[in-house]
Amino acid sequence: MSKEFLLRRIDSLRKQIRDKDLDAVMILPGSNMRYLLDIKVESYERLVAASFSSSGIYMIIPELERERIRELAGDLEIEFFEYSDAEGPKDVLANLLVELGASSLGIEGSAPYKTIRMIKDIEPKLDIQLIDDLLYELRMIKDDEEIKRLKKAQEIDIEGLIYGASVAKVGMNELELKREIENKLFDLGAESIPFCLVQSGPNTALPHGESTKRRISEGDLVLMDVGVNYEGYVADITRTIVIGKPTNLQKKIYSIVKNAQETAISYIKPGVAAEEIDKVARGIISGEGYGDNFIHRTGHGIGLDVHEEPFIREGNKLRLKRGMVFTVEPGIYLPGEFGVRIEDNLIVTENGAINLTRLDKELKGRLDHI
Amino acid sequence: MSKEFLLRRIDSLRKQIRDKDLDAVMILPGSNMRYLLDIKVESYERLVAASFSSSGIYMIIPELERERIRELAGDLEIEFFEYSDAEGPKDVLANLLVELGASSLGIEGSAPYKTIRMIKDIEPKLDIQLIDDLLYELRMIKDDEEIKRLKKAQEIDIEGLIYGASVAKVGMNELELKREIENKLFDLGAESIPFCLVQSGPNTALPHGESTKRRISEGDLVLMDVGVNYEGYVADITRTIVIGKPTNLQKKIYSIVKNAQETAISYIKPGVAAEEIDKVARGIISGEGYGDNFIHRTGHGIGLDVHEEPFIREGNKLRLKRGMVFTVEPGIYLPGEFGVRIEDNLIVTENGAINLTRLDKELKGRLDHI
Repeated sequence: MSKEFLLRRIDSLRKQIRDKDLDAVMILPGSNMRYLLDIKVESYERLVAASFSSSGIYMIIPELERERIRELAGDLEIEFFEYSDAEGPKDVLANLLVELGASSLGIEGSAPYKTIRMIKDIEPKLDIQLIDDLLYELRMIKDDEEIKRLKKAQEIDIEGLIYGASVAKVGMNELELKREIENKLFDLGAESIPFCLVQSGPNTALPHGESTKRRISEGDLVLMDVGVNYEGYVADITRTIVIGKPTNLQKKIYSIVKNAQETAISYIKPGVAAEEIDKVARGIISGEGYGDNFIHRTGHGIGLDVHEEPFIREGNKLRLKRGMVFTVEPGIYLPGEFGVRIEDNLIVTENGAINLTRLDKELKGRLDHI
Repeated sequence: MSKEFLLRRIDSLRKQIRDKDLDAVMILPGSNMRYLLDIKVESYERLVAASFSSSGIYMIIPELERERIRELAGDLEIEFFEYSDAEGPKDVLANLLVELGASSLGIEGSAPYKTIRMIKDIEPKLDIQLIDDLLYELRMIKDDEEIKRLKKAQEIDIEGLIYGASVAKVGMNELELKREIENKLFDLGAESIPFCLVQSGPNTALPHGESTKRRISEGDLVLMDVGVNYEGYVADITRTIVIGKPTNLQKKIYSIVKNAQETAISYIKPGVAAEEIDKVARGIISGEGYGDNFIHRTGHGIGLDVHEEPFIREGNKLRLKRGMVFTVEPGIYLPGEFGVRIEDNLIVTENGAINLTRLDKELKGRLDHI
C-alpha cells in the first residue's frame, strides 16, 4: 500500500475526528491498524497501539517488535514509545497520554477492557468514546486498490472451491477435504485462510459448525464455506453440492435458497436500505414455509474484516452506496437432515450489483467458472 | 472432557468468586470458556457469553449457534438465552442480568469494551471487576487430563520440527518450509497450529517476525518456532539450526544461548519466583556482553492459551508450584546478521523441572529425539 494511499485514509480519519469533536483516537492491532498504517501485528497479550491526533501519529510497541514495526512503518512519520517485557506498557502509555494532551479519546469497540482500565487508571477524567461507526464509515466504500485485492481473493477462492468439488468423494472425511482445499488455496497465493468450513450430510444443518471426521456418504450434501485473505482483503464464498443423486427434498430446498439468493441480489442498488435485501430473501424463504429454518442474517460486508458493515439484516436502515462490498448468503437448515447455503460476494455499482463470484451455483456435484 | 472434570473446575471457580465477594462472573469465548465448559466457539462479532452465579450457569447465544452449542454443552445444566440476528443481543443480556440479580460481576480483561458498554447501559450501577488473576490461579496448575494433552501436543510438535529440519535446504523459501511443517503437523493430529514461524538468515534477528519468501542460502541459520494445539492444549518449541557449516560467531552465540537456557532450567523448582529464572538466563547472556540483544522475557506459561501465567519475566514475584507448565526460551538477536532462540517446555515437579521437549538442541542441521 503506497504512503499516498495511507495518508489519504489518515486525512479522512482526522476529518471524522474533528467532526465528532474528538481530540485523538487510539487504534489497536487488527483491521483498522492495517487500513490506516498497513501494519499487521499479532500482539497476543503485549500492548501495541497507534494513536492519531490532529497532527501526529504515535505508536506504543514492545521492544521485541521494534525492528519489524519500524520497518513496516516505512517512511510514515511515527513517534514510537517502546517498552520492555520487564517494564510493561503502563509508563509509556502514560507518556503518550501526556503527549496527546487529549480530553476525549476515540477507541474501537473490540478494545480489551483491561486496556481501557489501564488508560482510566492513568487519566480517570479522559472521555473515552466508541468510534466503530466512524471507522466503518471510512472503510465501507472500497477504493481501487482495495477492489483489486478483493477481486484477487475471489479468484483464489473460486479456484479452491472448484478444486474442492472436484476431489470431494464418498469415504473422504470433512477434515481431509478441508485440508485439500486449504493447500490448494495456499498454492494459489492466499495470505491466510480465515476459515474453511467443510460439512457433509446432517452436519450441513449447523451453520457455524466445525469440520469433523465424518465421512462423506452417497447422497450427502457437502457444504463448503471458504474464506480467503489476499493481501489483507477477504473473499467469503459458500457452495453446497450433492454427492451422487439428490433427493426431491434436497432439490426443492436448494431451488428455494437459490431463488431467494438471486432475487435478493437483483434488488441491490444505491439508495436501498440493507434491511430491504434481507427482507427479499427472507420473504421468499418464509413464503415457502421455511422462515424458521433461515436462522441468520442474509449477509455482511467484507473487506479487511471477515464480517463488517454493511450488515444485511432486519433493522439495518443503512443505505447502500456505490463501492460497498458484501455477501448475500441465505440458507435453510433442517436439523438432523441437511442444510443448504449459497453465498456470493457483490459490489454495489451505479446501476445495481456486480457479482464478483463468477462461479456457477448448481446442486450437481461439480463447480465451474461462469 | 468429562462432566465430572468440568464440574470440579466450576466448583473451584465458584469458591474463588465467593472469596472475592463477587456475585457472578461472565466469560466470553476463548480459553476460559473452553476450560470451564469445554465449549469452543468462534463468535466473531456476535455476542456469546457464559455466566456463573453461586448456583446456576447461563449462556447467551445467537440463534444460529443453537444446535451446535446445545450439543457441546452435553448434560451440563445450562439455561440458554437466545437471540436472532434481527433482535441483537441487548434484550437477552438485560434478561440475563435480571436473572443474575448481581451487584458485582467479574469479567475477563480481554472482554471487548463494547460488551462492557452494553452491560453498563443496562445496569449503570453494576460493579464490574477484572478476574484474570483469579482465572489464571485456577488454570496455572495443570490436572492429569491437561498434562496428557500437553504431552501429546509435544510429541506432535517434536515430530514436526524433526521433519522440518530434515527437509530444510538451500533454495527453499521460508513460506514453503512453513507449509511443509504445517502439513506434517496436521497429518500427526494437530487440532490447529496457532503459529508456525520459519525464518532464515538475517530474518532470524526479528523475534515475532513473519515468514517470507526469502530463500534459504548456504550458511544461513534457520529458526523454527512452532506452536501446536492438541485438543485445546498447546506446545511451543523453538529450534535454530544451521544450513551447512556455522561461522565462529554463529557457534559462539549459539553456545551462549544454549548455556543460558539449560542453566535457567536447572534452577526451576517449587518455591522459586518466576523472575529468578529470568534473572539466571539474562545474567548469563549479559555476562557475555549480549544483554541488549536479549529483548524479550525468558518464557511464559502454556496451556489452553499460547501465552499465560506464569510469565517468566523480571518483576514477576509469582512463586513456581508443582504442576505449572511453561517455556524457557532465551534468545540473542543481532540485527542485520542473525538471531538464535532455543525454547523448551517444562513442567514443575517436586524436585525440579521435567523437560517435556525430548528433542536435541544442537546447531547442526538436523534434529533428533533424545
